[in-house]
Amino acid sequence: MGLAGGAGGFIGRVHRMAASLDGQIELACGAFSSSPERSRQAGAELFLPPERIYGSCAEMVAAERQRPAGERMDFLAIVTPNHLHAEIARLALQAGFHVLCEKPMTTSREDAADLVRLVAASGRQVCLMHNYSGYPMVKEARARIRAGEIGAVRKVVVEYPQGWLAGDFASAGVKHQSWKLDPERAGGSCCLGDIGTHAFHLAEYVTGLRVEELCADLSVFVDYKPLEDDANLLLRFDNGARGILYASQISINDENSLAIRVYGGRGGLEWHQEEPNTLIAKWPDRPREVVRTGCGNAYLHPEALAACRIPAGHPEGFVEAFANVYKAFAEAIRGSWTNAAPLPGGHDFPKVEDGLRGVAFVQAAWASQRGGQKWTRVQA
Amino acid sequence: MGLAGGAGGFIGRVHRMAASLDGQIELACGAFSSSPERSRQAGAELFLPPERIYGSCAEMVAAERQRPAGERMDFLAIVTPNHLHAEIARLALQAGFHVLCEKPMTTSREDAADLVRLVAASGRQVCLMHNYSGYPMVKEARARIRAGEIGAVRKVVVEYPQGWLAGDFASAGVKHQSWKLDPERAGGSCCLGDIGTHAFHLAEYVTGLRVEELCADLSVFVDYKPLEDDANLLLRFDNGARGILYASQISINDENSLAIRVYGGRGGLEWHQEEPNTLIAKWPDRPREVVRTGCGNAYLHPEALAACRIPAGHPEGFVEAFANVYKAFAEAIRGSWTNAAPLPGGHDFPKVEDGLRGVAFVQAAWASQRGGQKWTRVQA
Amino acid sequence: MGLAGGAGGFIGRVHRMAASLDGQIELACGAFSSSPERSRQAGAELFLPPERIYGSCAEMVAAERQRPAGERMDFLAIVTPNHLHAEIARLALQAGFHVLCEKPMTTSREDAADLVRLVAASGRQVCLMHNYSGYPMVKEARARIRAGEIGAVRKVVVEYPQGWLAGDFASAGVKHQSWKLDPERAGGSCCLGDIGTHAFHLAEYVTGLRVEELCADLSVFVDYKPLEDDANLLLRFDNGARGILYASQISINDENSLAIRVYGGRGGLEWHQEEPNTLIAKWPDRPREVVRTGCGNAYLHPEALAACRIPAGHPEGFVEAFANVYKAFAEAIRGSWTNAAPLPGGHDFPKVEDGLRGVAFVQAAWASQRGGQKWTRVQA
Amino acid sequence: MGLAGGAGGFIGRVHRMAASLDGQIELACGAFSSSPERSRQAGAELFLPPERIYGSCAEMVAAERQRPAGERMDFLAIVTPNHLHAEIARLALQAGFHVLCEKPMTTSREDAADLVRLVAASGRQVCLMHNYSGYPMVKEARARIRAGEIGAVRKVVVEYPQGWLAGDFASAGVKHQSWKLDPERAGGSCCLGDIGTHAFHLAEYVTGLRVEELCADLSVFVDYKPLEDDANLLLRFDNGARGILYASQISINDENSLAIRVYGGRGGLEWHQEEPNTLIAKWPDRPREVVRTGCGNAYLHPEALAACRIPAGHPEGFVEAFANVYKAFAEAIRGSWTNAAPLPGGHDFPKVEDGLRGVAFVQAAWASQRGGQKWTRVQA
Repeated sequence: MGLAGGAGGFIGRVHRMAASLDGQIELACGAFSSSPERSRQAGAELFLPPERIYGSCAEMVAAERQRPAGERMDFLAIVTPNHLHAEIARLALQAGFHVLCEKPMTTSREDAADLVRLVAASGRQVCLMHNYSGYPMVKEARARIRAGEIGAVRKVVVEYPQGWLAGDFASAGVKHQSWKLDPERAGGSCCLGDIGTHAFHLAEYVTGLRVEELCADLSVFVDYKPLEDDANLLLRFDNGARGILYASQISINDENSLAIRVYGGRGGLEWHQEEPNTLIAKWPDRPREVVRTGCGNAYLHPEALAACRIPAGHPEGFVEAFANVYKAFAEAIRGSWTNAAPLPGGHDFPKVEDGLRGVAFVQAAWASQRGGQKWTRVQA
Repeated sequence: MGLAGGAGGFIGRVHRMAASLDGQIELACGAFSSSPERSRQAGAELFLPPERIYGSCAEMVAAERQRPAGERMDFLAIVTPNHLHAEIARLALQAGFHVLCEKPMTTSREDAADLVRLVAASGRQVCLMHNYSGYPMVKEARARIRAGEIGAVRKVVVEYPQGWLAGDFASAGVKHQSWKLDPERAGGSCCLGDIGTHAFHLAEYVTGLRVEELCADLSVFVDYKPLEDDANLLLRFDNGARGILYASQISINDENSLAIRVYGGRGGLEWHQEEPNTLIAKWPDRPREVVRTGCGNAYLHPEALAACRIPAGHPEGFVEAFANVYKAFAEAIRGSWTNAAPLPGGHDFPKVEDGLRGVAFVQAAWASQRGGQKWTRVQA
Repeated sequence: MGLAGGAGGFIGRVHRMAASLDGQIELACGAFSSSPERSRQAGAELFLPPERIYGSCAEMVAAERQRPAGERMDFLAIVTPNHLHAEIARLALQAGFHVLCEKPMTTSREDAADLVRLVAASGRQVCLMHNYSGYPMVKEARARIRAGEIGAVRKVVVEYPQGWLAGDFASAGVKHQSWKLDPERAGGSCCLGDIGTHAFHLAEYVTGLRVEELCADLSVFVDYKPLEDDANLLLRFDNGARGILYASQISINDENSLAIRVYGGRGGLEWHQEEPNTLIAKWPDRPREVVRTGCGNAYLHPEALAACRIPAGHPEGFVEAFANVYKAFAEAIRGSWTNAAPLPGGHDFPKVEDGLRGVAFVQAAWASQRGGQKWTRVQA
Repeated sequence: MGLAGGAGGFIGRVHRMAASLDGQIELACGAFSSSPERSRQAGAELFLPPERIYGSCAEMVAAERQRPAGERMDFLAIVTPNHLHAEIARLALQAGFHVLCEKPMTTSREDAADLVRLVAASGRQVCLMHNYSGYPMVKEARARIRAGEIGAVRKVVVEYPQGWLAGDFASAGVKHQSWKLDPERAGGSCCLGDIGTHAFHLAEYVTGLRVEELCADLSVFVDYKPLEDDANLLLRFDNGARGILYASQISINDENSLAIRVYGGRGGLEWHQEEPNTLIAKWPDRPREVVRTGCGNAYLHPEALAACRIPAGHPEGFVEAFANVYKAFAEAIRGSWTNAAPLPGGHDFPKVEDGLRGVAFVQAAWASQRGGQKWTRVQA
């Protein structure tokens, strides 16, 4: 694969660890920074040959395209600030490369819709890095709901509190990711684009439902920031289910506390990202169950088992979930797989349409906010 | 004390255990049921002398008033279905008795406002049984916020999921409390009146803030029920803080999962009713702390210590918290205490104004719902 | 009931709250302290008539015996320092009173055996206050093992770490219970007598097995104390099961962390006193289950249900468990019950033989320690 | 690196993921199975060139030695059944290769001592894969104790229950690792060699103390197994501290529940492998703290920070801890590092002496068992 961005921050490192985890994907080239010098340096540290370290994505796409089949990158992973996603994805797709992209896919609904069209036209794939969908217990939850085990979904509570933007700008953690606070580069949203989209995708992914309408109350609590750092939303799903979604960056000491609770007519499910290997199953008339990640846990659905690497009790974490998205995407673009059919082995990955929905979600939330926090349709 | 109601259901038993826990309050008389026969039987099982077992509250109030000073009940505890609260409370106050009342205080805002006036006029007290405010760790949270330890409050998330009304009517748990589903006797609200008011009071009690506006999305998921069994609300507090409140009776296998998280500019607090002896304190730059109930835990605020009975690790539960409300109320009516001054020892109890706010909250939520789930002021 | 001791410390208060919780047992008289003056004062604060506040237990037993049937105490609860238990129990039994006694029952094996004989001869009962056996989830564990649900027991791990004696003598918590550190008054053991006996009883109560042999390593870590403050033991049960028991008073910040894990051939069970309303059930081929206290939880065994007072999620605590022992004992001495038959409703309480086993356990542990930490039989 | 073994079971895969995680170690060659055919196949699936897939370790060591400097493996990782470790390690060391070895290092004390001598003589290193020492919170615990933060250690409780050998032989999980039940190939111990050595190392690693004596009670609960499947031990450390160590393979539904609690004179620490990113810090007079993994958690000791890869709340797991051992070892053999000096950046890895202690521990436990479960010295 090729890598666009990823020289700074922690997420570039996560992409590299995740992509290579199973020994099936190799980092072949990259344009790691908008500064050619930093790009060279980053590439050298990654043992890349100088000729495949590029000063820009345009250069990378053009050069890789010229290489012989089998010697060029198979796909391009985009780990840049948000405002660059659309253009780089377009370049890559048009040049015939598959694309893996960080969320949010784009900073405008139009760009997102454009990528959907481009995928259809090009026959290439876009994988959106909703890495939380890669956890085995998230896949177990989805499989159980799809199999009807908790009955029709009535209510969804999804939350994503973080605390890293609760303080002042000088704090180190903030500085390294300052583009996330820049309306231009972040795309008009901070909290929703950065983590709200993950919560939104998780809710739709796990339930198989679609959010039709939302009512949003967005806030800016910390002065120096122009963009929302806290978002509380009410949701309505297409089957009549109700929901709450909240994302926050001012929830001090909450680290990365994405969690989801789904209640159906016959049972419920609960999952917390910070204890990712546990899924709580709730029943009306018997004790709740503690469902666990583990490649020997035969009671799991096949989709969940396929996402496990080691036996229960040997904690699998963030990188493994991330790697599951890479693995499924790699299988998809390696095989004769097309969008229409399920991947073999129950694997799956978030697609360009998920990217569009995420962008539409952020836009609907801001439209609700600007219009007086009224109910607003999610259009995607 | 005298008891109005409490023959059926579990809450009458809780009132009796809680009132007598510290050996300071004695059950002296009662009208335990609308059926005189059931009342006699209930009273006899409680070892009451026949002459102080009454067939109705009116009879009880009248008869007790005739007894010599020192030989009559000191206050009347009302544990009847909601629609009877106002009338009985009025009777008692007018006859010169103090009143302890289950929530919601009344079924109309007018009745609630009337009781506020009557308390002011009579010099008698009304204690509202928001028992969750009696937990030591709830008092610790309140004391910490009042002392500024977490800075100005920015966000409150309070939730109260239960699952006992998720199923069909025939289930035993529902039958015994069927009046809660009767619009007439319950007062036009099920989930909000029964448990939402607790969540609302907890949020205001812990933060010392007032909810100014709310936006509500209420649902009825189970067919046979005419009243809401799920409620999701966005909140705005009088200092600009934002909030989420949700209450649910269709959250299968969630037992009585009241919980609150408060985030301020310098820290946060988190408490779960089902693990009531733990309060999580969150800080931006050091590990979170596990604050614990226990009469020897000298680091606690005095208000919390005053609410502990035994050393840490000997779990105090629901009955003890309930008893703390009784204890504070008993101290108040025994002493020369008036509404204006704090109780000695840091004790406190919810008052008639809290009852009014709870009723106003339910009414505002239903007004929001009926008006298209728009933002609505809480008027109290 | 009558109360012997209980003026100082917290446990006297617990006895009074627990005995009266269900409105079936009344404190009728007491000799609350070895100081007649303190006894009078304590009795007065408890609203006892002066003539039934006694200056000594001997006086109390003699005087109560003279009272008409129906107007004397029904049983005597002994809450004094350990070294006084045997003599007071003997006095009471010989005078025809039933006895409820704090653990350890006596400070010598001979005294314990003597009480066993006296119970048999007198037709009176001794209830030993192993209060942890009163928790619903402990009764559920016992019922499940008795029903064979986890197969034959293979291994038991029971632990009881506390930290309150880890520091120096001046700390307040220690001062109030200084007799526990006095070899004479405590009976030659501190940690084992005070809490080790609870762990030992819990292991035998839950499994229905008997400890045959033990190997003990006892320590004194804090200088001023002459008695063991930490005890680590290996156990062998009469069915061949193996075990670990440890009790500690130097485990800083562990509050009252009694816990037990039992493993059988077909499943396992785990319970923690500080989260007493949860029992973890473990299975070889399906998710573990979270079994919960709650009077509506129909899946529980009858013995556990009979020990619940309120619905699930309304935490029942230390006092309720304590009260369950009182309740069963009261039922036993009120009815025509004899030692041979089970109590109606599945109730049960620890008996004089349990007291003997607890004393024999402490003695075996010290015999092992003195003999070079070798394997030693528990003789009872 | 070269790999000896690892074709079957899950641990070979873990070694490959861990070694490559940071992009600094490349799998260069291997002898993956005692069957040359299976070795070829395994190597091919790992994209190794055919000439570096070997039919035996002897062949691999000889052939790699012939390759030019810079083109041969830098070290050999041994992931074979236990009885082969010593011989392969000897071969590699004698040929000038560094060695990374699974635990237990050897199956006899003599072999272990021999490797210690060989390391000293050869100037090559042996890294023992005590992977649990690689977790950031384990390193934090060690750093805190070393810094005196909890005072002198008084007591250690280390436990390692698993349940995978509780059932019958036919279960799939057992079949794949059947050599662990073969006295010859496992080395005369099952539970102690496989997991007891991890618990033992963890106790010594975290506390910096040495176990001087132990008293062991070993059991075989499942019939078809000739080797111990449960082990309960009392420990004495060289500073007078006392301890309990237990390991079990018959603890149904306990997955991989390694945990350690250390109590000192001024505080305590507690860590659970299944929630590896949390360390509980206990204090006598203030709330316990929840210390967390996370590369931005500035309050951590440098040794712990150096072992973190991503921000708090993004769970790091088993593979990352494993990778930390690899990373430290790689740094050691790459640099001019010698045994005597600490590694730069606070990294460290278990060494040949730790391997010897592990083997001596197993032998002492069996000596205690055979001699009537008496206290026995650990000789290493």
